[in-house]
Amino acid sequence: MNDLQLAQLTQSILTIPDYPKKGILFRDVTSLLEDAQAFALTMQLLTDKYKDQGFTKVVGTEARGFLFGAPLALALGIGFVPVRKPGKLPRETYSQPYQLEYGEDILEIHQNALTSDDKVLIIDDLLATGGTIEATTKLIRRVGAKVTHAGFVISLPDLGGEDRLTAMELEIFSLIQYAGE
Amino acid sequence: MNDLQLAQLTQSILTIPDYPKKGILFRDVTSLLEDAQAFALTMQLLTDKYKDQGFTKVVGTEARGFLFGAPLALALGIGFVPVRKPGKLPRETYSQPYQLEYGEDILEIHQNALTSDDKVLIIDDLLATGGTIEATTKLIRRVGAKVTHAGFVISLPDLGGEDRLTAMELEIFSLIQYAGE
Repeated sequence: MNDLQLAQLTQSILTIPDYPKKGILFRDVTSLLEDAQAFALTMQLLTDKYKDQGFTKVVGTEARGFLFGAPLALALGIGFVPVRKPGKLPRETYSQPYQLEYGEDILEIHQNALTSDDKVLIIDDLLATGGTIEATTKLIRRVGAKVTHAGFVISLPDLGGEDRLTAMELEIFSLIQYAGE
Repeated sequence: MNDLQLAQLTQSILTIPDYPKKGILFRDVTSLLEDAQAFALTMQLLTDKYKDQGFTKVVGTEARGFLFGAPLALALGIGFVPVRKPGKLPRETYSQPYQLEYGEDILEIHQNALTSDDKVLIIDDLLATGGTIEATTKLIRRVGAKVTHAGFVISLPDLGGEDRLTAMELEIFSLIQYAGE
């Protein structure tokens, strides 16, 4: 990515102060989606990064992972598998609890959506603490598929997600990093 | 769409009996997403239907509307605007309650995501009773944008959604219809 492209992407992402609570700078990826050129550039850069590497499925986590994961699966010419909140997937599922700041939540995957032959690419909008992607990785491996890469539009490396996922033997890539805040 | 294409799409959509409750035949669009050829064909057919008609934004409703709405926005070269559950959008929003089978839920849109110059196309995976798309239409019109078309992968016309949305002056299109069940 060149400097002009980086500027185009960062200018399309609004920063909302004090959301969802005081002191937090929230990076609003919905403003990037509204900008047709920025959205197209984002998908082109992710496609260039991940094409021709033998991936057989993209997995995206509800809900914002769908926004980038589904288009990337199309661009790569492979299928898309959603990871969802409990009670949303109609076939037999595996469930994986994970910690939130307060309490815990659960993610699910269809048991027969992947096979041991699949080489999976995880895509999400933003990497912060990495809790949902850690749970997603566990689900993919529980189904028996291989997953070694996770890609993001935005990463906040100070929040520890990159280290956490690297420790799970995932190679992490993000288009934009916001650090030192 | 020719007969071969229709067969390819319908074969990719699994039917799950008795989900989410006894007597319901659930049409599982996630199996279509897993099938790279079927997903690509779906998006090609929706693109052919809606290209060159002057739409300026696609709106999709959380969460499955993201799966088809975001790729269609990219294919049409226009921006995507999400409609989400409460508390998920960081900027100022409008809220719209709508009825569920038991109780009610709320959908929200960013107030500044659309303008009165926008001509919006609504995209969702499946049209049943039309409640969420009625609420989505109200939100788009409350922002001041124009919306006259809603497109779906699947429609269940016996459940009344087509009539309900036609009464809101929306032109409805779906790739696959399951009727008389």
